[in-house]
This record gives sequence, structure tokens and C-alpha cells, in this order.
Amino acid sequence: MVKEAKDYVKVPAPALKKIAAELLEEYNVPPSHAHIVSDVLVTADLRGVESHGIGRLFPYYISRLQQGYMNPQSSPHITRNFGATFNMDGENGLGHVACHAAMRKCIDLAREFGIGLGGIKNSNHFGIAGYYSMMALQEGMIGICISNSQPLALPTFSKKRLLGTNPFSIAVPAGKAQPFVLDMATSVVPIGKIEVSRRKGIKVPPEWGADSRGRATSDPAQIFEGGGLFPLGGPEETAGYKGYGLSAAIDILSGVLTGSSFLAGVLNARVSPEPCGVGHFVAALQVEAFMDMSEFKERMNQFIEELKTAPLADGCDKIYIAGEKEFSQWEQNMKDGVPVHRKVWEELTALCSKHNIKLPEPCTDQP
Amino acid sequence: MVKEAKDYVKVPAPALKKIAAELLEEYNVPPSHAHIVSDVLVTADLRGVESHGIGRLFPYYISRLQQGYMNPQSSPHITRNFGATFNMDGENGLGHVACHAAMRKCIDLAREFGIGLGGIKNSNHFGIAGYYSMMALQEGMIGICISNSQPLALPTFSKKRLLGTNPFSIAVPAGKAQPFVLDMATSVVPIGKIEVSRRKGIKVPPEWGADSRGRATSDPAQIFEGGGLFPLGGPEETAGYKGYGLSAAIDILSGVLTGSSFLAGVLNARVSPEPCGVGHFVAALQVEAFMDMSEFKERMNQFIEELKTAPLADGCDKIYIAGEKEFSQWEQNMKDGVPVHRKVWEELTALCSKHNIKLPEPCTDQP
Repeated sequence: MVKEAKDYVKVPAPALKKIAAELLEEYNVPPSHAHIVSDVLVTADLRGVESHGIGRLFPYYISRLQQGYMNPQSSPHITRNFGATFNMDGENGLGHVACHAAMRKCIDLAREFGIGLGGIKNSNHFGIAGYYSMMALQEGMIGICISNSQPLALPTFSKKRLLGTNPFSIAVPAGKAQPFVLDMATSVVPIGKIEVSRRKGIKVPPEWGADSRGRATSDPAQIFEGGGLFPLGGPEETAGYKGYGLSAAIDILSGVLTGSSFLAGVLNARVSPEPCGVGHFVAALQVEAFMDMSEFKERMNQFIEELKTAPLADGCDKIYIAGEKEFSQWEQNMKDGVPVHRKVWEELTALCSKHNIKLPEPCTDQP
Repeated sequence: MVKEAKDYVKVPAPALKKIAAELLEEYNVPPSHAHIVSDVLVTADLRGVESHGIGRLFPYYISRLQQGYMNPQSSPHITRNFGATFNMDGENGLGHVACHAAMRKCIDLAREFGIGLGGIKNSNHFGIAGYYSMMALQEGMIGICISNSQPLALPTFSKKRLLGTNPFSIAVPAGKAQPFVLDMATSVVPIGKIEVSRRKGIKVPPEWGADSRGRATSDPAQIFEGGGLFPLGGPEETAGYKGYGLSAAIDILSGVLTGSSFLAGVLNARVSPEPCGVGHFVAALQVEAFMDMSEFKERMNQFIEELKTAPLADGCDKIYIAGEKEFSQWEQNMKDGVPVHRKVWEELTALCSKHNIKLPEPCTDQP
């Protein structure tokens, strides 16, 4: 989706993080926690994942805090700890806070045992899964993060939304190149892509979703209203049952095994007064438990080089490595400022004004 | 693919395992190892995964042993062990032997640390990944097994086969229901499906693969000869880059991190005199590290029940759980005998005759 420049203001990342954190503090979130949440949200925008960025600060988080649906003072605690594994209770607080704490714990365990692995129950939406998997990188570790989420996708042969877009993320340190960072929903597309196509009145590939009777359709309105997303792979004949299986496995680990909610039990952050019951599952894996870091980096260089220099398909001009586009976007947005949609900017302006928080000046355009 | 009964003989599973093991012993495989390999192969046939069953005994294994390409006396050894993790060298032996040993080690580690995690390098084709993940079930554990394999699939935007069909498998114990067993290639379809369509002269969905110029095609001949499989998701517009990312992540863990071969470095078991350099990666995870087993089983029952009783899409008559079809097939084949294609049966007959091994009587048809 192309962003139209006129719809956006650009804001320096540090200033955007600062006001997001200050706003969260106004709703009784402790400063150290507010800092984590704002860092996760603005990192999403920096990486070009606008759907999970600062635009969600109000509808997903502040609105829930305001209404008392979510606990601002959560202090995620470990309910079970055995060897290299643990289970954690997110206390219906901000998902970012719980998942950040869990990943820190995994990293500590991985130093001791080669791997650390933890489940988090009773949590909420946590932004981009890639943020947490990437926490492992600076420790010379591989990070993995998965989560369940509110149901939007259809199990193969069903017409009921039972699966979330249940993300899978893995981050692997590399040598010369940027790290390999896969951060993907296990549906073909996110619901946002359907929503945008509906608004614009354009058709979508019939592999993206089904109507309310579970039939593949090119009409985004029918997918959006009463239908649902196909899991990765699309319908049955193009192996959508594999995406269904992956998504179900993520729900089992994040929801069933952690003691959190699962399937239709995971509630919608925008509308539900009840705790959403989101569950996450994270791991950190020490590279040096398997191989010396210098050798591993050299091998990752070779791996990436072999992919990048492979012969191109007709009409294509580049082979990408997972995360590569997002790192380029990050660099550009660090330089030019983070694009914030004018509607989101107006929302932030109103909130800041209400709380006497000074808004940063947007960057001036440099054509 | 419908099996035509006339093309198959049915053989009792124990008898089939026995001759497979005896044949392997003729090629200097120790009895305990031969037992593992024959169990893996016949389990695939029992589960209806004919492509990975007894039909591969000769072309993938005995042929390589015969020609001295593979080490019959491998004794997989641990090269690094740290906490809950280890790395293992498969000594260019049968992949089944190495992966079986690694999974046993994971289970032991998981008893001590909640999780056990191991890589295997310098291995060979190992049959179905699901065999190893399912080893964890009887221990009250969740098993995970992934592997790289010879390149057959195309990275998004490339026309070169660089990715294997790199399988992902996870097995989760359940309560009343059969366990959840996902065992899937990360390409849309296996190459065998393309081969069969080519032989029959029927078109395939253009999401399955591309021609030698990397363009999506419905002609299986063009995919088979010089083209390649699409990763799960198909081409770019239906999110094939996600399947590409998953497959690459599997290759990183199984190939790069273990010290095995990766991408085009993984060689074809049918033709290569060099060691294939296949790498695997396995884990076992103790359920009770997270939750009491009785509670977990109850929750798995609810999870499965919610999926099985969901409203059906138009024209569909059943929602499946991963592994469900394979368990039904297993029950039927245990009762009726394992279907062995007549061509494979002739191959086995000739081999057995050469080594004076008594062939079992096929089951008589009971119409």
C-alpha cells in the first residue's frame, strides 16, 4: 500500500517515543513500563509496520486503560519455573511489558542453559512480535516470539473465525548483513489489507479470504463483514490447511499450554471490557551453545549471499532476506522522521493538549 | 491422489518392518539401527504417507549403502553439550538413526530442564519428521522436529531451486482425542504431486510452482523440468514470501546453526555420491513444566472440540485436526495391511530373493 505523503506528518522518533510514554504515564503506567510500550510502538512505525505503530496507542491501549479494562500497574510474575522454562502471568497488563519481561528472563536462562523458554498468560496485545525476538540479537542469541490473538481467520473447511492472525517471529544475528528477522502473521494477509481494499473498492485475490458461507471471494467487503481471512496458503487446494495447522500450533503453545485463552476465547482489544486473555510464547537460544559466534556469522554471511545472488525470476529485480525491507525503512525513518497519519496526529494532539504535554514539531519537508 | 487397489498389495505391518530391517542388516546396518529405520518407513506407510514409506528403502537408503555413499555403522556423537542443548554429528549415517538418538537425548534433557533442544549435522534423509516429534508424546511431552532437504523450492523472486521442502512437525499430547500432529512441508506441495500430475497430463493450480523463468505456471512438466515449487503461500501476491521465510528459518536452524550444509549445498539422496549434508533440529518440551498434565489434557480436549464443532463452510462436511486423517489411516492399515505399490513390491521381492530373505505373504483381499 502506497502512503500518500499529504496524509502524513513526519515526527522524529525520539520525540514520538517521549510523548507516547508521557501519555501512558498519565494513565498510571509506571515510567519504565511506559518506556517499553512506546519503544515497541515507535519501533513498529520505524520499521514501516504502521498497522502496529503509534496509531494503536489510543484504540488498543490508552482507551482500555481509561476505561479500566486493563491493569496499568501490572507486575508480571512467574507462576512456574523449571530448569530452562517458566510460565508467567501478565496480570491483564500491557502485553509489551509482560513479553519484554519474559524475553529478558529467557535471555538469562539461555546464558545458563543454552536456551530459555517461557509462556505468558493473561496478557494483552503486545505490538509487533519482532520486537521481542530482536531483543535476543544483541546478546548473540536467536530470539523466537509467537502469540495468539483475537479470531479473524477460518480453520480450513469452517466458516467461523476461530484463529487469530497468530504471529510467528524469529530473529537471527548475522555477520556483515543485517540480521534475519522474520515477523509474519500466519494468515495470508492481515485484516487491515482487506479493510483498505474495501474502502478503495478494489478486488482482492480469492486466496485471501472467504465470505460468510466460507466460500473464497474477491470481494473484500464480504470478507470483512461476516467472512474471514484464510490461513497462510489460502483455501484447501493451495494448502491452506498448513497455515491452519501452524496457526493452531501457535495457539496451543501460546494459549492452551500457558493457561491463557485460546480460539474464540481471545477477545478483541478494541471493544471487549473483559480481559482479552492473550497468550504469548517466547524463547532465546544461545548461538555459542551450538557453534562459535564467529563461525556462525561467517556461515550466515554465506547463507544470505547465496540467496541475494541467486538468479532472478522474470520481471523481478531483487531477492529479499526476511527483515531487509524493514531495516531499510528503519534507516530512512530515523533520518527523515516517522510518518504519522494525520488522523493519528490529530488524536495525539488532542490527547497531549488534554494532559498539557508539549507536542514535538513535525519535521519540515525537504523536497 | 486416489490409490487404485489393483496397483497395490497389502502386507501386514510387522512383517513389512521385519523384512525392511533384515534387508538393511544385509548392508551392514546394526540390528538396532535397522529396526529404527524400518519402523520409521513403515510408520509413514501406515499413516498414509506413501511418498516417505517403504518405497524409499531402496532408492534413498539401500542404494546409497550399496554404493558406499552412506555410512551403515554410524554412531551419532555429541560434539557440543551445554545445559539443555546439544549439537550432534550424524557421521553421514542413516538420518533416522541420528534423529532418533537426538530426540531421545532431548527427552532426557527435557526431564531435567523442562526442554531439550538439539541440532544434528552431517546426516541424511530421515523419513517423516512426524515420527520424531511423536516420540515425545508417550513421555507427556510436546515434540518438535524440523529438517532441511535438497533444494526444490524457489525463494520469492528467484528462479533457482535453493530451498528444500524443509518440513516442520510438532506433536502435542491430547486427552480423549488423538494427539495434534502437524507434519508439513513448507512448500505448497511436495514434488511428488507435481510428478504425478505431469504423468497424468493434468493441469495444477498456478500457486503450486513456477517454470524455469520463475513464472507461475499450471503446467506440471514446466515445474518439474527446470522450474521449481513455490514456498507455502505461492507467489508473492498470495504471501509466498512467508513460506520462503519459514523455509529459510528452518534451513538456518537445521543447516547453518548445526554446521551442516544449507541451501544448494544439501545434496540429492538419489544421485549424489557425496555426503548429502542434511541437517535436522529437534526439541522436546515437558508439558508439566508449564501446567499439570491433567489440566493440559482437559484444555486440549476443549481446543479440539471447539474446532471440530465449528460451523462448516458451504459444501464441506468435516473440520480436521492436524494428524487426524493420518491416525484414521493408521488404524485402517493396521487392520487391513499396509498398501505397497506393486512396483515397490517387485523391488522388495528381488532384493529379498538376492539375500535369501523370506517374503511375507500379502494379505488376501476381503471384498
